[in-house]
Amino acid sequence: SVTLYGRLNISAESLHFSSTPTRSASRLNVLTSDASLWGMRGVEDLGGGLRAYFKLESGFQVDSGALTSTTQVFSRESYVGLGNGNWGSVQLGSQWAPGLWQSLRADPFQRFGPGGQPYLLQGARGYTLRYDNAIQYLTPTFAGLSGRAYYAAGEGQPTGRATALNVDFENGPVYAGAFYENTLTSAASVGLAGGGRASRTASFAGAYDFGVLRLSGQYQTNSTEGVPHAKGYLVGVAVPVGAGQIRASYLHRSAPNADASLMGAGYWYYLSKRTQLFVNVARLANDGTAAFRMGPAIAEQAALGPAGPGAGQDTTGFQVGVMHFF
Amino acid sequence: SVTLYGRLNISAESLHFSSTPTRSASRLNVLTSDASLWGMRGVEDLGGGLRAYFKLESGFQVDSGALTSTTQVFSRESYVGLGNGNWGSVQLGSQWAPGLWQSLRADPFQRFGPGGQPYLLQGARGYTLRYDNAIQYLTPTFAGLSGRAYYAAGEGQPTGRATALNVDFENGPVYAGAFYENTLTSAASVGLAGGGRASRTASFAGAYDFGVLRLSGQYQTNSTEGVPHAKGYLVGVAVPVGAGQIRASYLHRSAPNADASLMGAGYWYYLSKRTQLFVNVARLANDGTAAFRMGPAIAEQAALGPAGPGAGQDTTGFQVGVMHFF
Amino acid sequence: SVTLYGRLNISAESLHFSSTPTRSASRLNVLTSDASLWGMRGVEDLGGGLRAYFKLESGFQVDSGALTSTTQVFSRESYVGLGNGNWGSVQLGSQWAPGLWQSLRADPFQRFGPGGQPYLLQGARGYTLRYDNAIQYLTPTFAGLSGRAYYAAGEGQPTGRATALNVDFENGPVYAGAFYENTLTSAASVGLAGGGRASRTASFAGAYDFGVLRLSGQYQTNSTEGVPHAKGYLVGVAVPVGAGQIRASYLHRSAPNADASLMGAGYWYYLSKRTQLFVNVARLANDGTAAFRMGPAIAEQAALGPAGPGAGQDTTGFQVGVMHFF
Repeated sequence: SVTLYGRLNISAESLHFSSTPTRSASRLNVLTSDASLWGMRGVEDLGGGLRAYFKLESGFQVDSGALTSTTQVFSRESYVGLGNGNWGSVQLGSQWAPGLWQSLRADPFQRFGPGGQPYLLQGARGYTLRYDNAIQYLTPTFAGLSGRAYYAAGEGQPTGRATALNVDFENGPVYAGAFYENTLTSAASVGLAGGGRASRTASFAGAYDFGVLRLSGQYQTNSTEGVPHAKGYLVGVAVPVGAGQIRASYLHRSAPNADASLMGAGYWYYLSKRTQLFVNVARLANDGTAAFRMGPAIAEQAALGPAGPGAGQDTTGFQVGVMHFF
Repeated sequence: SVTLYGRLNISAESLHFSSTPTRSASRLNVLTSDASLWGMRGVEDLGGGLRAYFKLESGFQVDSGALTSTTQVFSRESYVGLGNGNWGSVQLGSQWAPGLWQSLRADPFQRFGPGGQPYLLQGARGYTLRYDNAIQYLTPTFAGLSGRAYYAAGEGQPTGRATALNVDFENGPVYAGAFYENTLTSAASVGLAGGGRASRTASFAGAYDFGVLRLSGQYQTNSTEGVPHAKGYLVGVAVPVGAGQIRASYLHRSAPNADASLMGAGYWYYLSKRTQLFVNVARLANDGTAAFRMGPAIAEQAALGPAGPGAGQDTTGFQVGVMHFF
Repeated sequence: SVTLYGRLNISAESLHFSSTPTRSASRLNVLTSDASLWGMRGVEDLGGGLRAYFKLESGFQVDSGALTSTTQVFSRESYVGLGNGNWGSVQLGSQWAPGLWQSLRADPFQRFGPGGQPYLLQGARGYTLRYDNAIQYLTPTFAGLSGRAYYAAGEGQPTGRATALNVDFENGPVYAGAFYENTLTSAASVGLAGGGRASRTASFAGAYDFGVLRLSGQYQTNSTEGVPHAKGYLVGVAVPVGAGQIRASYLHRSAPNADASLMGAGYWYYLSKRTQLFVNVARLANDGTAAFRMGPAIAEQAALGPAGPGAGQDTTGFQVGVMHFF
């Protein structure tokens, strides 16, 4: 009645930070963990097509054994659901927000590594990864079409309340999706003082698998109260080569005097369905006041304090690692 | 040799706080988790009637994925036991104190929901839920009669040392129980300055299952050094209806200028043995300086700061949710 | 594909602290947990002799249900490995440093109880137990001979970078081993101000099992920048008696004006392969400025503040407990 599962992603990563007028070039060599997890999940058949199910998923760092979140043990998802193939499902708990599903399908790196989509498009003035205290309705899938409606209770706090919707279409080689999110983000996260600010994100993505390669793209726009619009896009390609895949993407994010771009390429080799080796390279270019960090070694860069990327500083990253599922 | 198990309880809860001379009426809508847990347990047969066993149980919040205790991962119970059917068992570790077993049998809500027994009778000037560093001896069950003797080492600290005893009689439709607890509670928890204060709690409970309904009651009295006596009682009823149960209880707690009462009713519907749906309503009335909070959304109310219930403020709660075992 | 396992060690321990010119004699009675753990591990056969494997191991206190480390959930080991019987294995993550393996073979108590080796030879100015962000290469075993080469990335921090090597020989009744560790330890840990200090530890150990008893010994020397050399040794014996084992050891550690010795004896009785009862006694004598604490109740002694052992204060400990594996 319960399945124990996990994913361990660990790599050696070398980051080079460019010189800027106020900082000299520097280098950081680290071991880093990327979205590693263990979890428990289960399904109970209640008869008449009804089923109860749950998921408890804990994110942690393989390189240090630490939890990814200092406040949440099941920081990835923690929910109970009741569902029916004809009427859909309702899930209660801490859950991925609708923006996640699109990022997984549009990003050829599936969010992993230094070139991953989250490092430029997710977070303040982009989509939100997860909300606590959320209620989600999932439609059944009909002719490849499915949708999600999402509400997070703010629980009397200035931020955290959200409504979101997404629609996905998947049929053979085609993927198309759209999502919309309306949330109260913290003023501090967009460089302002005060309480929550209304933040609206819309995004559209598509992909086509030609067999010899899979092309994908995403366009996202964000409007947050009190700050200028931010926009971003991604184009990606994945090419099957031998027992692996070449992956590459280009992302651009624009906001007044804070543009940034991220270019990544990598090779993923499948030792088995459960074990993969990978090598990735990426370059993140910050312009103006932009100071985006290249993942996944965000915590390691933060620990360096002022030696991490500053406004206008570029990062080049090289990564070699292993991913193992259990 | 090890069983992985759990219980997920999540609900939508709406709380209404009455107006008082110093606060206006307010409302709080939350998702809340009630005594959710996952754990590991196992038994080893050592031969000759002897067995070794253990339990490690972690309390967490399904709504946020956070641990219930910020300092303990196995915050519910964590112990090793050695036992024999003729001589009884000894358990070492962090364990429920004897007061728990009576509350589970006397309270028709079995401690769950806004009308649950713990919110008025457990804690400072009532019974203690759990001690760390405890040694417990459990007698064998003889003709329905069983007992527990409990000692918690204070480990040189001003609070935390405790001795406790309980006796339970369960035979067919009859339950009767008594417990006594003698502990050092912190002075701060009863509004005083200084170190530990001797606190003694005695409690008696009984229940009879008539088949068409089960009646239950409990009477508890506490004497804590330096503060007046506190007393409390509970009367409860559970009525099987269809594939479910109507539950109702009334609790009263009296202390000088700090009386409080809690009235609750609910319907619990069993989709299966492992999955239940429930709806509960309750009203907690505080008099004088009493400022009890209605459960289980204690953390959510605490996060609101001064908007939570204050002295003399009443709370009305409505809750609808699901409980799933794995 | 995943195995859930654990070890629970809990005991009642009584400590007596000698009187010194500045402190009077005192006593502490505690329940204490010793290296208790739960974990997940697994192996995948990738074909051609290659295998992928992992280990995630969480240390916790059975007596309180708390994590042993406040910052790491998998505080014991957290790694992924790829290995081959002919070429050896590479492991990435948080891992025991090479000094651990020798301590397990030299110490008749296998690191458990008040007389355990770690309390005098491990830590600042001795070997390090574990590093995060480590890469380790393990040779295959050839005619009983095996080795490990270890590197921990400092990740731009003043401490934590380390290189280490060990060689072990095990053949029938014979064990012989050597290790060398070169690390940057924190200046504060050796009583100095400033950043990391180079610390080098070398150690040699041997054991012979005569059948009627097993003799073992270890010699360790440490050289840390800015402080005098520290040296230590251990002699131990284990004698099979009935369904158990008598264990005894003597350790001495010398540094200028900070000598200490630890003498321990105990009886371990095997109720089964998975469940053991034990009784241990030990005496730790501090000279000069030495203020070593007797394990495993380190946290309980630390919580006592100035009542814990001070410079030159001796501790006598008595412990009775149970260890259970699952």
